[in-house]
Amino acid sequence: MKASIVTIGDEILIGQIIDTNSAYIAKQLDELGFKVIESISISDDEQAIENMLQRYQDTVDLVIITGGLGPTKDDVTKKTLCKFFNDTLVEDQIVLKHVTYLLEEFYNRPISEINKQQALVPSRCQVLFNKVGTAPGMILQNNKTFFVSLPGVPFEMKYIIENELKPWVLTHFDSFYNVHQTIITQGVGESLLAERIATWESNLPNTIKLAYLPSPGMVKLRLSSSGKNKQNIEQSIANQVSMLALIIGDCIISYDEQLPLPNQIYLLLKSKKQTIALAESCTGGKLATCFTEIPGISYVFKGSIVTYATDTKVTMLGVSQDTILQESVVSAAVAMEMASQAKNKFQTDYAIASTGNAGPSKGDSDAEVGTVYIGIATPTGTFSEKFTFGTPREKVIKSAVNKALELLYKELIKIND
Amino acid sequence: MKASIVTIGDEILIGQIIDTNSAYIAKQLDELGFKVIESISISDDEQAIENMLQRYQDTVDLVIITGGLGPTKDDVTKKTLCKFFNDTLVEDQIVLKHVTYLLEEFYNRPISEINKQQALVPSRCQVLFNKVGTAPGMILQNNKTFFVSLPGVPFEMKYIIENELKPWVLTHFDSFYNVHQTIITQGVGESLLAERIATWESNLPNTIKLAYLPSPGMVKLRLSSSGKNKQNIEQSIANQVSMLALIIGDCIISYDEQLPLPNQIYLLLKSKKQTIALAESCTGGKLATCFTEIPGISYVFKGSIVTYATDTKVTMLGVSQDTILQESVVSAAVAMEMASQAKNKFQTDYAIASTGNAGPSKGDSDAEVGTVYIGIATPTGTFSEKFTFGTPREKVIKSAVNKALELLYKELIKIND
Repeated sequence: MKASIVTIGDEILIGQIIDTNSAYIAKQLDELGFKVIESISISDDEQAIENMLQRYQDTVDLVIITGGLGPTKDDVTKKTLCKFFNDTLVEDQIVLKHVTYLLEEFYNRPISEINKQQALVPSRCQVLFNKVGTAPGMILQNNKTFFVSLPGVPFEMKYIIENELKPWVLTHFDSFYNVHQTIITQGVGESLLAERIATWESNLPNTIKLAYLPSPGMVKLRLSSSGKNKQNIEQSIANQVSMLALIIGDCIISYDEQLPLPNQIYLLLKSKKQTIALAESCTGGKLATCFTEIPGISYVFKGSIVTYATDTKVTMLGVSQDTILQESVVSAAVAMEMASQAKNKFQTDYAIASTGNAGPSKGDSDAEVGTVYIGIATPTGTFSEKFTFGTPREKVIKSAVNKALELLYKELIKIND
Repeated sequence: MKASIVTIGDEILIGQIIDTNSAYIAKQLDELGFKVIESISISDDEQAIENMLQRYQDTVDLVIITGGLGPTKDDVTKKTLCKFFNDTLVEDQIVLKHVTYLLEEFYNRPISEINKQQALVPSRCQVLFNKVGTAPGMILQNNKTFFVSLPGVPFEMKYIIENELKPWVLTHFDSFYNVHQTIITQGVGESLLAERIATWESNLPNTIKLAYLPSPGMVKLRLSSSGKNKQNIEQSIANQVSMLALIIGDCIISYDEQLPLPNQIYLLLKSKKQTIALAESCTGGKLATCFTEIPGISYVFKGSIVTYATDTKVTMLGVSQDTILQESVVSAAVAMEMASQAKNKFQTDYAIASTGNAGPSKGDSDAEVGTVYIGIATPTGTFSEKFTFGTPREKVIKSAVNKALELLYKELIKIND
């Protein structure tokens, strides 16, 4: 079961936007058992679309295409699909009724000629109803290949995949499973890790594929396998993970990539009916964002004080002016005071604080660019750790966020034991 | 001057990560005058890489490939390049010296056999020095096509493009220019906008391409043109923009897509030596992140109080308990109190506040899912506006952030006039 993902839009090819649709679609296809062989972005251009249709027909089973379905002249996907498949556009009455309703209900105006074009679909296509927008999804079959065309607006695309496409796929394709297990390691670089697990790696059965995914401060290892018997595949991967834990258990920090660290922290805190707050300087709201992306988090996450300017650490958090003068604003003492003050002010059980210099130039302290202190306040005390993350700025901030989450997570697990 | 972008890695094809490298590379190539015809992600697999090399050779001028250059067994890019181009790997002494230095300086250990492989490059390639990592970039030429292979770690890839590849491109390709002008509109949907500018659009010269980019709460229009005479292209686009402003001037909020709204706000505040603070509820740190991504922002951005739990609006921000009980936590009154309290506490000239219900379920208030109040405190007063952004959650939060920035921006421009 091979699949391809296609995004249509010049905005991707000139780098105006980051394509997030493809990752979402890839994940869904992977979970449905498909092997995605390519993910490609092409221009809003008839010839480019025709070349793509030509290239994928009969070489893959399913092609998911997003973009180019708007009512304006620059959108040519529907027209090109029709031409390529030698079909004609017809008005779909259910879609027409829905578009009319959306315009009257939300825009308070009657349907226009341009809007009506949204209800035109190729006569031989199967319509995928788009409850949250005006452009319907469409399935067109040619020999062994199904081409699925979806709108490019992310929440519309997601709605149709979840509610319309997935049920259709389950009835049109056999059951097949892709199983992945990601192991997150910290403290050992990629090549040293490879040396430590070399013997184990060379003995891996050829049904299991190993990948190394390095990023600032961590290396993820991913084991992947596919087949018709899900339980067998899961078991064979689990056996390999157990062996791996015997070799590099000291640097494994998590086995659950599906559940990001903030979610794991949320579940741990919720189970203990405990709460957390933040005091952020160099992470500037990014730590708060990690938590507030989780629905329901307000039971455990009380809030954050982002003290970006030095003076606000004193006025807003109550960090002592003397500490800042004596130790500098980027110091262990300030990180600890920030954490304990956040914990007190929000009346929480835990708090995380960050203070550092992400660069590009030195700020209100003499600290080298890349220096970050993370402070952690727990029910039993406060501590801080110093890190040097080098350059550039984005790496420093990302490393600081990851390290802060990791320190808290380890603390929660320790106390849990 | 045609180009293609290739990312190698199964992590993209199974949806484990969002590919941000391609957007960065696309933007650089666009600025260098290339037309990117495709951007593709393929598997860490020799056959897939060979197919790609075959397909692009002699059809495009430049191919930028990222990924698969690590020292571990799953990385096969270098080996496959060598095989395809009938070349052999040789040890590059400068790279070897650099890898040795990095390991001794940062990891405090001698170079291992695995590390040494990083210094192996195809004998006919031109090496692009990677100061910030161990994997060098490589340029291989075959007939009219240049294949450039770069590491996939984002900051390493960016370093090499900026410092090594760009200077090389400028000496190997003719000058050619892509010019884009994006106009941001608000308040009118895509199809109504298309109706209003239909006559103008049909009279556009065929050297200029128009694109509609709709997103929650706004539609961007992009005018694009290319050629050898940059000044002429810029002038012809500027003329069209002037005509457009006469037709839809009432809904244009910005002409400068290159400069995101937070940066424009930063420049406006800086020029007036004024400051801003935030009080965030439903935006949960995302507004703070918009600002703290800007280097140097601490001159104008004092900080944010993220009051995610209702009680912290009282304890941390000093919002009156009575207001919350009488008006509910999602209300105009609370948004205004949050904004004015943030302004007072941080002692700033402006403050933005958000309170709302992003869903999926109702929270601590009876407000419908999708309801958001934005409060703005200015040197002369405080006001709030109510919005209903519908579902899903991600759309609500994104809309709230955009709307908050827009309200403040309009306020700053008004006072500036």
